[in-house]
Amino acid sequence: MSEAKVTYVAGLQFIGQATSGHAIVMDGDAGSGGSNTGSRPMELLLMGIGGCSGMDIISILKKKKENVRGLEINVKGTKAENYPKKFTDINLEFVVKGKNISEEAIKKAVELSMEKYCSVKATLEGSAKITWGWKIIEE
Amino acid sequence: MSEAKVTYVAGLQFIGQATSGHAIVMDGDAGSGGSNTGSRPMELLLMGIGGCSGMDIISILKKKKENVRGLEINVKGTKAENYPKKFTDINLEFVVKGKNISEEAIKKAVELSMEKYCSVKATLEGSAKITWGWKIIEE
Repeated sequence: MSEAKVTYVAGLQFIGQATSGHAIVMDGDAGSGGSNTGSRPMELLLMGIGGCSGMDIISILKKKKENVRGLEINVKGTKAENYPKKFTDINLEFVVKGKNISEEAIKKAVELSMEKYCSVKATLEGSAKITWGWKIIEE
Repeated sequence: MSEAKVTYVAGLQFIGQATSGHAIVMDGDAGSGGSNTGSRPMELLLMGIGGCSGMDIISILKKKKENVRGLEINVKGTKAENYPKKFTDINLEFVVKGKNISEEAIKKAVELSMEKYCSVKATLEGSAKITWGWKIIEE
């Protein structure tokens, strides 16, 4: 069981705190009556899928002793036009930086995360079509 | 289009930043090789559904001139036992605090969020069965 408490502050500002204890500020933009002091709730889903898959990939590549010097995940989410405007498509681009990294190792790590391990991806794919690609930057 | 960039820092620590510009730290627990410096990615989904529905409900109740003095959303997520351990069930309890608030107004606001407006709920319900309840605390 994973738990979170979300508490209203003012305007459209809310503080979220979950089992691990870390707090996050959420807010709406000015157009919706908020003050933009924190993340939009829908943004948390995109950051979550990036962090979840990133942790998988780093863990796998470290076990394989690959010389990874950096990893960036660019996540793009497309929403339905009509309410409730759920995510219909999410694309992830994994940009791996390192020295002499095996292309095969990256491919395998990304596939293991996307097809086997990433809990956030598995939760979101019930609604959104999730696609991904990857590239290596030698440095 | 909503976008996020998630950048690897060290250990299992990642920084996420989305279109609105606010950054969030994500990390794993010690058991998985992390250092617990930030939220677990799966926690972001629970905080996201709480914030999303909370913003809807506050907006609706303010339009109705209800005297709301507080709102807390308690979110509980149950994960599948096996990988990828997606959320299978999510329960939200809306605790509204205020003076002489109309029960009918609360019921209607919660239903409008859950059944019509909340984008995060609509995205997560593709995988997780989402249930909810509410109570009013007179104060």
